[in-house]
Amino acid sequence: MEEKKISEKTVRLLVALSSKMKDNAHCPYSMFPVGAALLCEDGTIFTGCNVENSAYPVGVCAEKTAISKAVSEGYRKFKAIAISSNLKDRFIVPCGNCRQFMAEFGFDIDVYMSKPDLTYTQSTVGELLPMGFEPTQLLDEDRIDDKSIEIDLDSVAKQTGIRKTSITNGLNGSQNGQHANGCV
Amino acid sequence: MEEKKISEKTVRLLVALSSKMKDNAHCPYSMFPVGAALLCEDGTIFTGCNVENSAYPVGVCAEKTAISKAVSEGYRKFKAIAISSNLKDRFIVPCGNCRQFMAEFGFDIDVYMSKPDLTYTQSTVGELLPMGFEPTQLLDEDRIDDKSIEIDLDSVAKQTGIRKTSITNGLNGSQNGQHANGCV
Amino acid sequence: MEEKKISEKTVRLLVALSSKMKDNAHCPYSMFPVGAALLCEDGTIFTGCNVENSAYPVGVCAEKTAISKAVSEGYRKFKAIAISSNLKDRFIVPCGNCRQFMAEFGFDIDVYMSKPDLTYTQSTVGELLPMGFEPTQLLDEDRIDDKSIEIDLDSVAKQTGIRKTSITNGLNGSQNGQHANGCV
Amino acid sequence: MEEKKISEKTVRLLVALSSKMKDNAHCPYSMFPVGAALLCEDGTIFTGCNVENSAYPVGVCAEKTAISKAVSEGYRKFKAIAISSNLKDRFIVPCGNCRQFMAEFGFDIDVYMSKPDLTYTQSTVGELLPMGFEPTQLLDEDRIDDKSIEIDLDSVAKQTGIRKTSITNGLNGSQNGQHANGCV
Repeated sequence: MEEKKISEKTVRLLVALSSKMKDNAHCPYSMFPVGAALLCEDGTIFTGCNVENSAYPVGVCAEKTAISKAVSEGYRKFKAIAISSNLKDRFIVPCGNCRQFMAEFGFDIDVYMSKPDLTYTQSTVGELLPMGFEPTQLLDEDRIDDKSIEIDLDSVAKQTGIRKTSITNGLNGSQNGQHANGCV
Repeated sequence: MEEKKISEKTVRLLVALSSKMKDNAHCPYSMFPVGAALLCEDGTIFTGCNVENSAYPVGVCAEKTAISKAVSEGYRKFKAIAISSNLKDRFIVPCGNCRQFMAEFGFDIDVYMSKPDLTYTQSTVGELLPMGFEPTQLLDEDRIDDKSIEIDLDSVAKQTGIRKTSITNGLNGSQNGQHANGCV
Repeated sequence: MEEKKISEKTVRLLVALSSKMKDNAHCPYSMFPVGAALLCEDGTIFTGCNVENSAYPVGVCAEKTAISKAVSEGYRKFKAIAISSNLKDRFIVPCGNCRQFMAEFGFDIDVYMSKPDLTYTQSTVGELLPMGFEPTQLLDEDRIDDKSIEIDLDSVAKQTGIRKTSITNGLNGSQNGQHANGCV
Repeated sequence: MEEKKISEKTVRLLVALSSKMKDNAHCPYSMFPVGAALLCEDGTIFTGCNVENSAYPVGVCAEKTAISKAVSEGYRKFKAIAISSNLKDRFIVPCGNCRQFMAEFGFDIDVYMSKPDLTYTQSTVGELLPMGFEPTQLLDEDRIDDKSIEIDLDSVAKQTGIRKTSITNGLNGSQNGQHANGCV
């Protein structure tokens, strides 16, 4: 862990680079430029910015840009990432989607969240995504067989005092859609 | 195919419902409400709207809302979907992300794209996503072994007159990142 | 805060419903069904499951399905969400993307993470997404003008001992792409 | 348009580079490596690969990696993109999400879809995303006021013969959720 720490000078460089990267952001929809600078284990730095799309969910955040860039160049081990925005009085934080994307490559990556004046606060992916969903979880072979546990909703219903009909309705969808009888 | 067609009355209903659904949209960022109405094979209709997020890429479109709603209620076969927006003089079209989401459930689903005056134009998922990436493609067992084809970039380079160094640089990343020597 | 708490019976119901919802999951790619059950402030429950896509990033998680479903029906205030998977010995946790999606509607939503035997552990969106990126952040009017701060990378470079050329290369991209001179 | 065309030699280079990029793909979940090579207007080439995540929807496709990389380095004008996969007998096509991401930067970008033997077929973003949702659409000022059109669902219902109750139920959600009376 100790060896992971990076010097304050390097942090200042990362923060400055991430701030500079806001210039390249494509964000005509949010007008909210974000920059990122990612430090690989060997000292290589990759930068990124947000690339928005007119269909909002299709856009890519700055952190994801920097990391996918690094991965596409053969890098998989990262020490730290710095991010910057134009929010005046708040340290910009990574969104949950980006935290998840970072977690794929390690919960111990340092995250430096900055303000436009280049001051920053530090955390880690693990602290920002506690109880994180991690790679091994999905590849975990230790899953139950789909049918190995039979849930007795009747019994749950009895215990809770919920009428069974209202429980099953929620599940079989009989009242959840609207039926357009005879007109189709 | 013929039996897939739905009556104009049903289309009008779908369009009206999709338009009405704009009222429920959560779109404080784009101020661009979108509504959708999905007709299942058995006549059940599910509706949806866009649900945006402050982290733009995390949001969900109206079409995805309607379809995931239906799937979660046990439906997998869909006949048609109608969508609506507030764009005055243009038929609202589904974004590429939504077209891909629809394609998972069939390229022959009818898509009705409307204007606020409830006029509409019709297409299909297949027409809106030609040469679509489809479920069978990913599950296709017929893949090459990763190592079965060796690409000779040297030879490609010779044919194109590109210097080999510039090609390999692009791949091994030696110039793509920026090295922070000695400061880490 | 106290009034937010829900009874153990209701939690058990939510967990059981979320577990049952795995039956509706469309997950031919991960074979990892996830179910969710969302409790609205007025007691209404919406359920969800994951709806995967052959193009993996296009899929929708169970939590997003349940929430977008509720929003599309006019609900915006949520008390709790329960989630279930088939992981035998681990409480299933929401991914970062879902935590962000939940955060849009409140950091104080309770999150019940369960095992297939219906045991569970409890947390909140706020605890699972500390220092969360929140709606007000993006709508924050208090942003700096893009040009109001000029970063002097030269000076940063001097302080860190990084050669200026390596810094600027990273930014102007002159070495980051590969130039296919004369062949285009 | 004519000037946009690129030489066959350059296409072969793009295809070879995209194929080579599969080596860097992070795809432990799909085992489906995809590579991309993007040609900028000035001849610079950026490469990309897919970077998957244990939470599938969080991953990034190869095409998005290549384009966000280029944008983050200051490039916005693209001539062509080539993509590669290990599908033996099929030209790999971009998913709808990627088509949308490309469309942000132009419908006239050439798309070269290849097989592992480096043969390819050509199309354009415009052909692959007909009637595409485009940047100008979202920024379009010409929207109706939310309240300017009042849809009379009663009248629609009368015309279609649908009972009004079934229509409104679908909209106000009174039957769409499941009420856990008295237990919360």
